[in-house]
Amino acid sequence: MSLGNLYIISAPSGAGKSSLINALLADLPRSTVELSISHTTRSPRPGEEHGVHYYFTSHGDFEHLISQGHFLEWAEVFGNYYGTSLPLIERSLEEGIDVFLDIDWQGARQIREKLPNVKSIFILPPSKAELENRLIGRGQDSAEVIQGRMNKAVSEMSHYNEFDYVIFNDDFDTALTELKSILIAERLKQEAQSIRHQALIAELLG
Amino acid sequence: MSLGNLYIISAPSGAGKSSLINALLADLPRSTVELSISHTTRSPRPGEEHGVHYYFTSHGDFEHLISQGHFLEWAEVFGNYYGTSLPLIERSLEEGIDVFLDIDWQGARQIREKLPNVKSIFILPPSKAELENRLIGRGQDSAEVIQGRMNKAVSEMSHYNEFDYVIFNDDFDTALTELKSILIAERLKQEAQSIRHQALIAELLG
Repeated sequence: MSLGNLYIISAPSGAGKSSLINALLADLPRSTVELSISHTTRSPRPGEEHGVHYYFTSHGDFEHLISQGHFLEWAEVFGNYYGTSLPLIERSLEEGIDVFLDIDWQGARQIREKLPNVKSIFILPPSKAELENRLIGRGQDSAEVIQGRMNKAVSEMSHYNEFDYVIFNDDFDTALTELKSILIAERLKQEAQSIRHQALIAELLG
Repeated sequence: MSLGNLYIISAPSGAGKSSLINALLADLPRSTVELSISHTTRSPRPGEEHGVHYYFTSHGDFEHLISQGHFLEWAEVFGNYYGTSLPLIERSLEEGIDVFLDIDWQGARQIREKLPNVKSIFILPPSKAELENRLIGRGQDSAEVIQGRMNKAVSEMSHYNEFDYVIFNDDFDTALTELKSILIAERLKQEAQSIRHQALIAELLG
C-alpha cells in the first residue's frame, strides 16, 4: 500500500470542478497533492507546455506505450489519443502525494476496474437554473448549442451515484473546505497512519 | 439508512480526547453533532445533572432495560451499571445528527458487532514522554500510581488498530481540524448525499 491516495474527480461542465481543483492545488503544498498530467497526441496550443499541461507524444510513441500497458486508462477523441500514465502516478503515490485525475465517468469506470482502492468524487451544481446560467456563458451561443451542453451535462450527472463522495458546489468556499476535508480524512485512515507513524507507534506501545 | 453517523471515539487517558470532544461540540451546532449520554446506576456527584451528564437510573430499572434489549452496550464497573441507550441514539441519527460515543476498546467491540456501520476514531498522544507528562498531572501521585496509569494507557493503545481513523494529538488545533474533517467527509459519502438531496438530484437529472 502506498501512502498517497489516488482520486478521480468528475463533474458536468459548469459545476466548477476546474476552479475547485485549482484552488485546492494553490492552497496545499505541492508535496502533498498534485494533478495528474495526461499524455496526448494532439498538438500543443499556444501557451501549453510539455510536462505542465500535457506530455505531448507522437502517435507512434503513444501506441507503443499502449502496447506496453503504460496507461491506466486511455481514449481516442477526434482522432487524438489521451492517456493517464500509471508509472508516473505510482511514483507520486509512493512519495505520499495525493494524485487527482480530472476525468469523466467512463474513464472513472476503467480506473476503478484496475485500481479498486481509488477514491472518487463527483461535483454537482446547486440547481438546474444555476447550471444553465453557467452553460449560457457570455451569451454568444445559440439556444441549440446551449441545449446540447445541457443534455451532455445531464448525461454526465446521471453517473454521480458511481462515485464515493458527492459535493454540491453552491458556495465555493464551502465546497473547497469539503474537498480538503475528504483529503484530510482519507489520510487519517488507520492503515495509512500505521505505516506513516510506524516508529512512533512502536515507541508508544513499547 | 439514517442521515447521521454514529462515531466511537477512544483514547488512552492523557491523549486529550475529552478536550477534543468538548471543542468539537462547542464549535458545531447542536443540530449536527452530540455526545451520547449514558445511563448509570451510580449516584450523581455534586454538579451532575440527570439528562446532561448521565441518565441516573435505579438498579431495578437498569436491569429491566437490559432484559428489554435497550442497550447498545453495557458494563458493570465497581458494582454499578453503565449503558448506552440504543433508542436515544437512533432518534438522533434519524434526525441527521452525528452521535459520538466516548467509550473504551471493549465497548467499541460490542458496538461494532451490533452496528457494523459505526465509524471509529482513536486518539493517540504525540510521544511516550508527552503521555507520561500528562499522566504525572499535578505531581501529587507516587511513581507506582503513575506507572499503573502508564501500563493502562499502553494496554488501551494496543487496540488502536481496531479503529477506522487514527488522530495524533500533537497540535490541538490540527487534531481538532482533523476530527472535523472526518465528520465533514463522512457526510459527503454518496449514499447519504443521495438521500439528503433527493429532490435536488431529481431536478438536476430531470
